[in-house]
Amino acid sequence: MSHPRVAHVGIAVTDLDAATEAYRALLGHPEHDRETVEEQGVEVVHFEAGDAMLELLQPTRPDSPVGRFLQKRGEGIHHVAVWVDDLRAELARLGALGVTLIDKVPRVGAGGHLVAFVHPRSTRGVLVELTEKRKDPAP
Amino acid sequence: MSHPRVAHVGIAVTDLDAATEAYRALLGHPEHDRETVEEQGVEVVHFEAGDAMLELLQPTRPDSPVGRFLQKRGEGIHHVAVWVDDLRAELARLGALGVTLIDKVPRVGAGGHLVAFVHPRSTRGVLVELTEKRKDPAP
Repeated sequence: MSHPRVAHVGIAVTDLDAATEAYRALLGHPEHDRETVEEQGVEVVHFEAGDAMLELLQPTRPDSPVGRFLQKRGEGIHHVAVWVDDLRAELARLGALGVTLIDKVPRVGAGGHLVAFVHPRSTRGVLVELTEKRKDPAP
Repeated sequence: MSHPRVAHVGIAVTDLDAATEAYRALLGHPEHDRETVEEQGVEVVHFEAGDAMLELLQPTRPDSPVGRFLQKRGEGIHHVAVWVDDLRAELARLGALGVTLIDKVPRVGAGGHLVAFVHPRSTRGVLVELTEKRKDPAP
């Protein structure tokens, strides 16, 4: 049996520098890292917050998923990510239960981890990211 | 120095029973507890997900904060909560930094823990709940 664990909370922002300042103030400590994930069209800042992270997301182009979210909803929480042990097995389990998946096969996300998204229609309006840790340690 | 840790992700829902079913499917295990918090006008179901919880919130009345959120935005993520060691000290620290607080003094929330909310205008559109564990163990 899998034990999904909250990995991070993704927050869509229009100004990553200003947002980073705001979360430094809120959490009382500096960010963990900053990276660009071209495939998803986002620049990302992570803050540690216990076992989970807060992930600030600024779109690198307006037609990216986060860019479209900002145009429609404005800044705010975009998704919640949970760690799973075996992403392929989880996608098979959820598919068999009739859960609507955005990604039927895993792809590579921030930090080089495998990711797949569950459609909000199966999770009461919440965009859920399932993620499996990369096997090789980050360089 | 404080080390805030993600405590839970609050999700506003219109049908708590259906939402509970959906999250049982997603997480592959049953819920941790269910309770009503009259002061905040919500019925709450918690699911364990690592160190953090997923918290499903159904309003008990339409004019409650979660009821108004649902009318305006529909179902989805409502807030993120972080544990702090000393809530009064955190509120003083944040107030001195110019962070806008919804609650300048702590009040009692779900599980009997102290809670206070930070205004989304200081956190890029995110409603942030700060929470301090109740000192006496739950009965």
